[in-house]
Amino acid sequence: MAVMQNASDKHFSAEERHAIYRVIHERRDVRSQFLPDPIPDEVLGRILDAAHHAPSVGFMQPWDFVLIESTAVRAKIHMHFEQMKERANIYEGERRNLYNSSKLAGILEAPLNICITCDRARAKGHGLGRQSDPMTDIYSTVCAIQNLWLAARAESLGVGWVSILDLDVVKKILDIPAHIHVVAYLCVGYVSEFQNRPDLEATGWETREALANSLHFDNWSNRNQLRSAAICTGADGSSKPL
Amino acid sequence: MAVMQNASDKHFSAEERHAIYRVIHERRDVRSQFLPDPIPDEVLGRILDAAHHAPSVGFMQPWDFVLIESTAVRAKIHMHFEQMKERANIYEGERRNLYNSSKLAGILEAPLNICITCDRARAKGHGLGRQSDPMTDIYSTVCAIQNLWLAARAESLGVGWVSILDLDVVKKILDIPAHIHVVAYLCVGYVSEFQNRPDLEATGWETREALANSLHFDNWSNRNQLRSAAICTGADGSSKPL
Repeated sequence: MAVMQNASDKHFSAEERHAIYRVIHERRDVRSQFLPDPIPDEVLGRILDAAHHAPSVGFMQPWDFVLIESTAVRAKIHMHFEQMKERANIYEGERRNLYNSSKLAGILEAPLNICITCDRARAKGHGLGRQSDPMTDIYSTVCAIQNLWLAARAESLGVGWVSILDLDVVKKILDIPAHIHVVAYLCVGYVSEFQNRPDLEATGWETREALANSLHFDNWSNRNQLRSAAICTGADGSSKPL
Repeated sequence: MAVMQNASDKHFSAEERHAIYRVIHERRDVRSQFLPDPIPDEVLGRILDAAHHAPSVGFMQPWDFVLIESTAVRAKIHMHFEQMKERANIYEGERRNLYNSSKLAGILEAPLNICITCDRARAKGHGLGRQSDPMTDIYSTVCAIQNLWLAARAESLGVGWVSILDLDVVKKILDIPAHIHVVAYLCVGYVSEFQNRPDLEATGWETREALANSLHFDNWSNRNQLRSAAICTGADGSSKPL
């Protein structure tokens, strides 16, 4: 089997690379398609272990995971979300209608919510790398979230990151100690389907930027359009990277 | 072919899942093993496109990539790194020896460095999700970095995140505008080998925490050891997730 042959020399086969790009391209931020089906503990263990194998500054591993299955707790978070969604409604005209009709969280529909935190005072890692950039512990925690998101997609689990929350309120609801920083609140569950495009692209909220517009060479002002075009050939946003 | 059959129903096959967990578990933060071999533009395009397909708040896509191949520019960054490494040497005794002997960046050895930035003023996304948590644009950028890191590993490219830098100095060296926030400075290149364990674990700088110690249930103080054990069974940190 190709997978096993390649494991020995530590390279990835074309099929393996394809799977990795596929999951990166087919990952979605899910809001609307959650199913109530329970998540087996072994699947949950695998996606949390994927998060736990993220890079971390100084090998600090500053993260914690609060797994929320309780309907009562999710109802409290949902009620707070509804208030925040109304408060964040700064839009007018067409965009206000679009905002109002947008499903922005599946807190109650997803059977599992996960609050991911960063313990900024954790001694592990002995401060390595954090003296010059104190934000790196938070960044490590975000890397863990992205690992979890990709592993979840591979397990056919949808993940939605709810950013319309006051994280201090979330902290109170979950009795999280004052010194712990809440980084993210995720909804996790099986889904009826994975959309082909991000919801915000499909509804017309925002368009996808071309990769070439994000590239600079050696210096911010050097856009080097020829080189940029060479790099972007084949990187067309499709899931056919091979 | 299994990959193609499963593409249609959007599930991932056991082999595909294995590849995805493999890359998550075998990704390393590389410092010492870089080779000078050039990176083909098509490979570079694929890993940058992977970054560009990260989740972003409001579909804002706030990131930019400064690709640094110039030896002169890398030499400037390296000189600054050496100063910062000395300045950050707060350690004593055995740990001081360990710090001094640790290779903490491959800025000159890696043929490519990538500075990844976040444009916090970018209008894209129309502010969605950023009113309640202004940090989410930075988090989106970190998700892009983790995507790039995993794609690079799948391409047998090593990545090292250099955190011992004053990012304002990096900003000046690369002529990055004042309103752009520098999130990360990465070294990227082919490697002589990928280590089995993180360098910081292998050298004894820090030990790996058990996943079970990071789990909480519905409430921070509820550790639920039985449930935790059920979830962690099989999540033993090996790359045998299936």
